[in-house]
Amino acid sequence: MLAGRALLERADALAAITETPPALTRSYLTPEHKRAGELVLGWMRAAGMRAELDAVGNAAGRYEGTEPGLPCLMLGSHLDTVRDAGKYDGMLGVITAIACVDALNRAGERLPFAIEVLGFGDEEGVRFGGTLIGSRALAGAFDPALLELRDAAGISLADAYRSFGLDPARIGAAARRPGDLHAYVELHIEQGPRLEAEGLPVGVVTAIAGFTRLQVEIAGMAGHAGTVPMAGRRDALAAAAECVLAVERRGSAAGLVATVGKLEAAPGAINVIPGLARFSVDLRSADDALREAAIAELAAEFGAVAAQRGVALEIRGTQSSRAAACAPWLMEQFAAAVRAEGVREFRLMSGAGHDGMAMIRIADIGMLFVRCARGISHNPAEAIAADDAEIGARVLLRFIRAFRPRGSPR
Amino acid sequence: MLAGRALLERADALAAITETPPALTRSYLTPEHKRAGELVLGWMRAAGMRAELDAVGNAAGRYEGTEPGLPCLMLGSHLDTVRDAGKYDGMLGVITAIACVDALNRAGERLPFAIEVLGFGDEEGVRFGGTLIGSRALAGAFDPALLELRDAAGISLADAYRSFGLDPARIGAAARRPGDLHAYVELHIEQGPRLEAEGLPVGVVTAIAGFTRLQVEIAGMAGHAGTVPMAGRRDALAAAAECVLAVERRGSAAGLVATVGKLEAAPGAINVIPGLARFSVDLRSADDALREAAIAELAAEFGAVAAQRGVALEIRGTQSSRAAACAPWLMEQFAAAVRAEGVREFRLMSGAGHDGMAMIRIADIGMLFVRCARGISHNPAEAIAADDAEIGARVLLRFIRAFRPRGSPR
Repeated sequence: MLAGRALLERADALAAITETPPALTRSYLTPEHKRAGELVLGWMRAAGMRAELDAVGNAAGRYEGTEPGLPCLMLGSHLDTVRDAGKYDGMLGVITAIACVDALNRAGERLPFAIEVLGFGDEEGVRFGGTLIGSRALAGAFDPALLELRDAAGISLADAYRSFGLDPARIGAAARRPGDLHAYVELHIEQGPRLEAEGLPVGVVTAIAGFTRLQVEIAGMAGHAGTVPMAGRRDALAAAAECVLAVERRGSAAGLVATVGKLEAAPGAINVIPGLARFSVDLRSADDALREAAIAELAAEFGAVAAQRGVALEIRGTQSSRAAACAPWLMEQFAAAVRAEGVREFRLMSGAGHDGMAMIRIADIGMLFVRCARGISHNPAEAIAADDAEIGARVLLRFIRAFRPRGSPR
Repeated sequence: MLAGRALLERADALAAITETPPALTRSYLTPEHKRAGELVLGWMRAAGMRAELDAVGNAAGRYEGTEPGLPCLMLGSHLDTVRDAGKYDGMLGVITAIACVDALNRAGERLPFAIEVLGFGDEEGVRFGGTLIGSRALAGAFDPALLELRDAAGISLADAYRSFGLDPARIGAAARRPGDLHAYVELHIEQGPRLEAEGLPVGVVTAIAGFTRLQVEIAGMAGHAGTVPMAGRRDALAAAAECVLAVERRGSAAGLVATVGKLEAAPGAINVIPGLARFSVDLRSADDALREAAIAELAAEFGAVAAQRGVALEIRGTQSSRAAACAPWLMEQFAAAVRAEGVREFRLMSGAGHDGMAMIRIADIGMLFVRCARGISHNPAEAIAADDAEIGARVLLRFIRAFRPRGSPR
C-alpha cells in the first residue's frame, strides 16, 4: 500500500489531468480541477473514507475513529499547480495521506480520533492571484472580497464558483471550528536543496516563512524608438529593469529571498519605447521584522528609481502572511516517527508557503518534508525517489498510529 | 483643398478604423486595413485618380500626366499603425499627397509626368515583425521567406494574404521597375523634437537612419520563489534586466539610440523564478559603422551577463537596414519649395525608419518633415497643428508643380 512506485503512479495519474498538455498546469475551479478532485475522491472512497468536494471545491475525505463524530487529525495538501509544474508539489501529501488511511482500513484499524484528508483546490494562487483559498475557507478565513478577484480572462472568482457548480454564498459551509481538529499535518516535498545536501530522505519542518507580495506599476511615456533622444526618455521598462535588479540585490541579504516572477511591458512593440511596465515582487523570510524592513527598503529604492527617471510609481501590496511556526509537540511526534524508521532526525525551515499558514488559525500545525532532486520544484524537472516517497509515507503512518492529541498522557 | 482642418478631419476618419477602439491600432492584412484602404481609394478616385489595392494590399492611385503611361513621381506613406498609435504617423503623407492631386485635378492641370500615390499596408511591422512589407514588395525586394512569418495568433503571412483576398504567389505583381519612377518622395511627421525646437513647421530630410533589430532569448532555470537560495538561482528575468540596462547605456552614446520595446518572462507566475526571458532590441544610427560596432559590443555585453549568471543566451538578428541618404537633387527641389512658402530652410535627419528605406532600391528618395508636438509619436498623444499640415501640403504641391526629373534642364 505504501510502496513508493504505487505512490508515484498516482502522481502520474494526477499529472495527466492538465490544462496545457503535455505540460502540467491545473488551476483552481477549472474542469481539470474537477476531474483531479473526482479521481482523488475515488481513491479516498476506496480507502474506506466518506468523501466529497466541499463548498469551495476541496476534495475532503473522512475516516471515522473508534466511534463516529470524534475530532480529527487532519492531513492534507493541495491539488492545484503552478504553470508548467512538477508532479509532486502538493499532490504527494494528498496521495501519501490517502495511502496511510488505506493501510489502516485494510488492517481494520480504528483510532481514538477520526482522520480527515484534504486535497485543497487552491494553494498556488495562479489563476486568481490570491493563494491558499482552499485552506483559508476551511479555516474560516475566507474574505468575501476575494470573490471580486478576476482571472486573466476577466472571470471573477464568484462566477468561477458558479461555473464549477458551487454557490459563492455558501462558502462559509467549508469552515471548520477549532474543536473539530486535534491538529493539521502535511507531508510535502522540500522544494529546496537541504535534505539532499544532508543525505536524508525526510526532515521535520520547524516553521513556514512569511511572505509579502507586491504588484508594482510604472508609468512613463511611450514614444518612437528611433526619434526620441535617450536623454528625454521616460522608459517604463528600463525603470522596471532597475527595480528587478534591486529586488535581486535586496533578496540576497541573509534570511531573505526575493523574486520578480511576472513582468509585462506595454505597448510591447519592437519600435516603441514602453510607456508602462508592471511586475510582481515576492519576498520571504522566517523573520517577520526582517521581511517588513526589507519591503520598506525596496519601496524606497523603487521610489528613488522613479524619481530619478521621472516615471510614476504605484506599489500595491497584494498579499502578505506572517511566518507560521510548527507546534513543538507535533515536531516531537514527527521526530519520534522519523527515528523509529531508522532515519536521522533533521529539522529545517520551509521557504515555501503551505496550507498550514491558513490552517494555523484553527489548529496547531506540523509538517514533514520529503527530499526532492536538486531542490527543483515549480518546474517539470521536479523529481523524487520512489524510496523517499515510501519512507515519507511510512513515517506518516507511524506518526498517525502513535498520534497523541496535545496534552494527552504519554 | 489643402485646408489644414480638412486634412486633419481625414486623419480623424482613418483613426476611427481601428482594431482596439477607442485606441488606434491598425495592422497589416486585418479587416481594418481593408476598410482603411477602401476609404483611401475613394478619396483617390474623387481626386481624379485610378485607384485599387495592389498585390500586397497597398492602396495605389495614379493620376496621368500630359499623356498616358508616363513615368511617375511617386508620393506615399503608410496606412498601418503601431498599437495604441497616433493619427498622423504615415496617414498624413497619404492624405496630403491625395489633396495635392485633388488640387491639380480641380485646376485641370496635367504635368509632364504621372503622379502616383501609395498608401502602404505595412511599414511598422507590428503584426508579423518584418517592417516595410508594402514598400519592399513595390521595390521588388519582397523575400518569399517572409511568407512563413507568423503573427501572435499563429497565422502565417501567407494565410493572412489569402484571408485578405490576395494570392501569395502573385506578390511579384506589386513590383515596379526603376524606369517607372522619377523619384519617391514622402511627407511625414517628424516624430522628434527638432522642428519644434527650431520653431519651424517643416524641414527637409537628409537621410533615414539605419537600424538593427535583435530578438534575444535567455534560458535559465525556473524554480520555487521561496526555496531556491539566491546564490543558486539562474533567473532569466534578472539576466534580461541587466541586458535592458546595457541597451539603454549603449544607446546613450553619441549618434545612437537603442530601445527594448518587448520583454516577456516565462512561466510568468508570482511565485516562480522565471526560467525564460525574451526581449527585442532596436538600435539606430545614421552611421552604419557606428551601428554595427554598437551591436557587436552589445552582443558581447549580453554574453558576459549570461556567462556570469550561468544562463544560456541566443541572439537572433531579425532585421537590419543601412542608412538611406536622400538624393541631393530632391533635397534642393524641396528646399526651394520651402523657401517659396516663406519658410526658413532647415535640414534634419530621420531617426525613424520610413518606406524610403525600401524605395531607394528602385528610385532616388526625398522626404519632407512636418513639425509634431513635443516630438511624441507612436502614442495617442501624437499631435500636429492644422496650420503646419496646411503648410506641409502647400510645400508638397509647390514641389510637385515645379518638379524636374533628375538631370532635366532647369
